[in-house]
Amino acid sequence: MYIGVDIGGMSIKAGIVSEDGKILTKCAVPTPCNDEDAFCRAMLECIKKAMDEANIGIDEIKSIGVGSPSAVEREEGILLEAENIGYKRIYARDFLQKSLGDIPVFVDNDANCAALGEYYKSKKSPHFIFITLGTGIGGGVILDGKLFLGSNGAAGELGHIVTRAGGRECNCGRRGCWEKYGSMTGLIETATERRDEMKSLGKNDEITGKLIFDLSEKGDDGAKKIVSDWIEEVAIGVVDMINIFQPDEIVIGGAVSAQGDVILLPLIDYAKKHAFCADEIGIPEISMSKIGGDAGIIGAAFLHKNN
Amino acid sequence: MYIGVDIGGMSIKAGIVSEDGKILTKCAVPTPCNDEDAFCRAMLECIKKAMDEANIGIDEIKSIGVGSPSAVEREEGILLEAENIGYKRIYARDFLQKSLGDIPVFVDNDANCAALGEYYKSKKSPHFIFITLGTGIGGGVILDGKLFLGSNGAAGELGHIVTRAGGRECNCGRRGCWEKYGSMTGLIETATERRDEMKSLGKNDEITGKLIFDLSEKGDDGAKKIVSDWIEEVAIGVVDMINIFQPDEIVIGGAVSAQGDVILLPLIDYAKKHAFCADEIGIPEISMSKIGGDAGIIGAAFLHKNN
Repeated sequence: MYIGVDIGGMSIKAGIVSEDGKILTKCAVPTPCNDEDAFCRAMLECIKKAMDEANIGIDEIKSIGVGSPSAVEREEGILLEAENIGYKRIYARDFLQKSLGDIPVFVDNDANCAALGEYYKSKKSPHFIFITLGTGIGGGVILDGKLFLGSNGAAGELGHIVTRAGGRECNCGRRGCWEKYGSMTGLIETATERRDEMKSLGKNDEITGKLIFDLSEKGDDGAKKIVSDWIEEVAIGVVDMINIFQPDEIVIGGAVSAQGDVILLPLIDYAKKHAFCADEIGIPEISMSKIGGDAGIIGAAFLHKNN
Repeated sequence: MYIGVDIGGMSIKAGIVSEDGKILTKCAVPTPCNDEDAFCRAMLECIKKAMDEANIGIDEIKSIGVGSPSAVEREEGILLEAENIGYKRIYARDFLQKSLGDIPVFVDNDANCAALGEYYKSKKSPHFIFITLGTGIGGGVILDGKLFLGSNGAAGELGHIVTRAGGRECNCGRRGCWEKYGSMTGLIETATERRDEMKSLGKNDEITGKLIFDLSEKGDDGAKKIVSDWIEEVAIGVVDMINIFQPDEIVIGGAVSAQGDVILLPLIDYAKKHAFCADEIGIPEISMSKIGGDAGIIGAAFLHKNN
């Protein structure tokens, strides 16, 4: 049995995960912000709660993995600065070993954990790319069955390739990053710019991703066009990944995975038309995440497999 | 001793390469087009000429590698369709073994061979990217010291990522591919569109890459701006590669490598400003090819190391 911890801006989630990737129990506690001690205590409390509910002791746990929305120091088991939570340096391994005993503790960033989770729930083909469309575009690259980290552990910033040079300003300092167009935030920004095209939008309606998809589904032509243009923005980056990596499999995650075929089918169609020599060599299998929010817990629990 | 064969649209080059990557002798013959038998005979003639000049026999050769401007079937040693030469299927391994005896023969595409050649002449850090700026943008990706080929052998089409969505039409079927802006062809196309900006350009001058660089060096402000804008187009894709791979080293090849620091220094400067978290994690070493046209021969000769 393994423990996976998935740290988010709103809540810390912990799950007890079996050898074959099933979550036996999971718990969540609110994430304390701007207080590293309180954060550590909450993480520990969440883990203990999950163990209590599963009615298992620490001696039955083989390792703990922690996914952080930040960079990490893998060798030392340290979570580095997470701006949206307000911690600067959490000695996760030291703290958890002091609190729970001499158990292996691994850390990685949350996008890599989610990628690993999806990977271990997939067919486990050698080259696998996970792309998550949310506030930004994140992801993880698995090559030959291992997370690809590059020379410095920071590889795989898939959202920060430029698809529209000179375009929208990105937090990373570039202009026209893929995530400024293909993320949910990108969709909302586009829909806000093109608000007048959505004829069934109420004057005071706040534009959200869900609202845009709902209007589109209900037949609002403006919303339909905005959604299909957005899918093309997503597809441009997905085809970039195909041309660079030619992976076996690509999985799309994030809140949008609930939209299923509405997004997936046009995305596959676009890739078949535009990926390099797709007529001759085909395209990778592309699918939507089937485990959604659990990917982070499962991937964190399975970090030991990657180490 | 190894033999490396580099097939180009104009000439077939063959070289005798030592264990440590030195070319002892090299020869070239014109490439016969649209005649597979003549092509094979010319390739063999070129190899024999190189051996004669080096005064060595086939028994001193450990393997032969062939780089083709086309896809290949690595397992069978077959060169697939090369449109610009007009062959469809060259059974290189069978032919060379029949002609020269039972010697290992490896094949790969020319961009991969050039990448390998540059790699074995570099510091051989684990993650290495070679980008060649010519008619298009090609390249090769070396991860953990091996050519990364993806699931189907076709990975690394680095020039066919989109940096300007909706932009210039590319032969690959996409719009706005990096190579439509960052290649030499891209530079010439841009300079042709902006011809009037180059005040010292003669009315009937044909615009070539060399001419643009020459005018820029001589102080033509229009040409200077066109060159610096082009370097930014190159840099956008280079930073994409950094954000995706975080390699240890990037080498830029192709005819432009003769321009040296004129291109390299602003490119490094741009990467330092725009690569993800470059302030904290730095950027990979970026340099210009030092072996230029020989990279293809050396890399082909060293294909055995990758197999």
